[in-house]
Amino acid sequence: MSVTHPKGFRAAGVAAGLKSSGARDVALVVNDGPTYDSASVFTSNRCKANPVLWSERVVQDGVVRAVVLNSGGANCYTGPEGFQTTHAVAEQVAGHLGIGAIDVVVCSTGLIGLTNPREQVLAGVDAAAAGLDEGGGDDAAQAIMTTDSVSKQVVVEGAGWSVGGMAKGAGMLAPQLATMLVVLTTDAVVPAEVADRALRAATRVSFDRLDSDGCMSTNDTVTLMASGASGVTPTEADFTDALTRACTDLAMQLLADAEGADHEIAITVLHAASEDEAVDVGRSVARSNLFKAAVFGNDPNWGRVLASIGTTQAAFDPADLDVAMNGVWVCRSSTPHASPDEVDLTPRHVDVTIDLKAGEARATVWTNDLSHAYVHENSAYSS
Amino acid sequence: MSVTHPKGFRAAGVAAGLKSSGARDVALVVNDGPTYDSASVFTSNRCKANPVLWSERVVQDGVVRAVVLNSGGANCYTGPEGFQTTHAVAEQVAGHLGIGAIDVVVCSTGLIGLTNPREQVLAGVDAAAAGLDEGGGDDAAQAIMTTDSVSKQVVVEGAGWSVGGMAKGAGMLAPQLATMLVVLTTDAVVPAEVADRALRAATRVSFDRLDSDGCMSTNDTVTLMASGASGVTPTEADFTDALTRACTDLAMQLLADAEGADHEIAITVLHAASEDEAVDVGRSVARSNLFKAAVFGNDPNWGRVLASIGTTQAAFDPADLDVAMNGVWVCRSSTPHASPDEVDLTPRHVDVTIDLKAGEARATVWTNDLSHAYVHENSAYSS
Repeated sequence: MSVTHPKGFRAAGVAAGLKSSGARDVALVVNDGPTYDSASVFTSNRCKANPVLWSERVVQDGVVRAVVLNSGGANCYTGPEGFQTTHAVAEQVAGHLGIGAIDVVVCSTGLIGLTNPREQVLAGVDAAAAGLDEGGGDDAAQAIMTTDSVSKQVVVEGAGWSVGGMAKGAGMLAPQLATMLVVLTTDAVVPAEVADRALRAATRVSFDRLDSDGCMSTNDTVTLMASGASGVTPTEADFTDALTRACTDLAMQLLADAEGADHEIAITVLHAASEDEAVDVGRSVARSNLFKAAVFGNDPNWGRVLASIGTTQAAFDPADLDVAMNGVWVCRSSTPHASPDEVDLTPRHVDVTIDLKAGEARATVWTNDLSHAYVHENSAYSS
Repeated sequence: MSVTHPKGFRAAGVAAGLKSSGARDVALVVNDGPTYDSASVFTSNRCKANPVLWSERVVQDGVVRAVVLNSGGANCYTGPEGFQTTHAVAEQVAGHLGIGAIDVVVCSTGLIGLTNPREQVLAGVDAAAAGLDEGGGDDAAQAIMTTDSVSKQVVVEGAGWSVGGMAKGAGMLAPQLATMLVVLTTDAVVPAEVADRALRAATRVSFDRLDSDGCMSTNDTVTLMASGASGVTPTEADFTDALTRACTDLAMQLLADAEGADHEIAITVLHAASEDEAVDVGRSVARSNLFKAAVFGNDPNWGRVLASIGTTQAAFDPADLDVAMNGVWVCRSSTPHASPDEVDLTPRHVDVTIDLKAGEARATVWTNDLSHAYVHENSAYSS
């Protein structure tokens, strides 16, 4: 159900032939109102895909009435012709719904540098518009998958209202944001400015802290649409909390399905001078190929953790760092403590805890190990 | 011959039992004068190994009379006891040579977080001091190898003087500097302040632009010793040129021997607004696991190059970037140009050229592909 769980939304997911497998590849999610408030965040990559260039304009007035998404091609680095395809897709959706194209967010995902066949995508839009249904969330979630092995969906219940969501992404996961497309829906009454604050607060501690492989995508889009169909106006705090839970749940689903990974790794940094510094330190470890390869080999190599921390400008005493892996403090005051033999890294979930002893802030950054399968999948992806 | 090619130097490399293989693991390089000018650069990692903490003090007065190096253990994150081991090694060398310990640079390499057995290292120092020889450069170069498959040495001839050098390093290669130990020698007359300027100029365009795996080491040390034994004083420009050639040659040897790599990749950035921005752009590509895995798979995936460029703050128009791979311009103005099928990535050496069209500066950054063997070697390294 996911995006169609909240009232006021219809969705569809159809096969337009963009994927050689014949699987669903065009999704459409429509807000039937009565309100059309929205908020969005996009990749901070400066080389953006055409759908992002289009959608950044669409969202400026806080009104979004539909999101159309295709897998099977990212429409990125495809020049003016690619932009025209994105625009034509928005117009096609608008024509079916009797709305303006400027209220239609467009998302694409798949290989970059390849032109999407325009007629095929437009035919997919026609089929999706014809198939719109209040139970269409599952089909839509499947239609946005690329190398994902499972579809990602979430529902969080409020008091008389709810948040639904779907996401895709399995690699190129790094802020801001991960390679991912996310559509969030709610039937709460949420003015656009509240939606914007809530979405930024939610993504800051969820998608933005996912750093699977350090590679920032060109197509990332997260769009929230609020239909107001429940008639309930939650407090901003309650809504932000529900939205944060939905985003965190989807982020953990993305992490668990990262290409080729054997482990999910949560890097928690304690006693940092600021939250930003805690994130910086966590991210430095999350981006160490040596550390990630060690985790793949079930090797609790804490020296590689300290070597990564040392590359940051965060406040700490290099001679007084503590590191625990899966609860075992293998390093105290930057010297060996408990034997690494006590650390069991065979579980899929790995916890790394770093104590900077420099303040009261903390943060968790999530990553994956660096595995043979990651290398294989990404060396063969476009062939 | 390497470090003992210039006049005024003796060296030795012996087996002290630090390596379980029984291979040479302690090296000593001595400057017999008549001058003892020197210059050094160290890792910019804030979590430095004990030998670096010691040697940073040694080099402050511009006088270095000997460099003692051990493989088989990095003496990093080993606390005060490890620092005492480093100090004891310097004292032992000084006692044999009749000099002060404060003129002895100490370098260590190998696993981090393990204490080096002090008595074993000191016995190695005794054997190395007894074996010092004007032809000892080869043995010394072998004694500093870790996962290196070959020893790295260089000789550059000047007019009546020369530069010699040896290096180790095969992973954790990233600025500033790569994981490497480098000893450079010259019999030219080079005052310490000239040596310092020349060394910084040489390392800036060689070792500092090597970014094999984005991981900055804790033990990196490059030390240059000038004996003045040739009696010749070259111009600063001539000396800097020779030193730069020696450093670049050693850097390329390190690149070619990087752990598990199938390709050396030279990323050249043209028409940048500044040299720093050219380096930033080159490094962003060098650190893209997705791009590196694609090269491993012989896949000319230029979209991943643009996605990496987009993460930098360099001056460029995201819609007007050109990219060539091995001479084929697969991307012009951020859109597909020549067919990727025309690109042959089977040769070991891969050239990526990026035209930013933003200025007149340029730079080359070197990296390797991301291979199964890299993951394997680094997931099993400490076991």
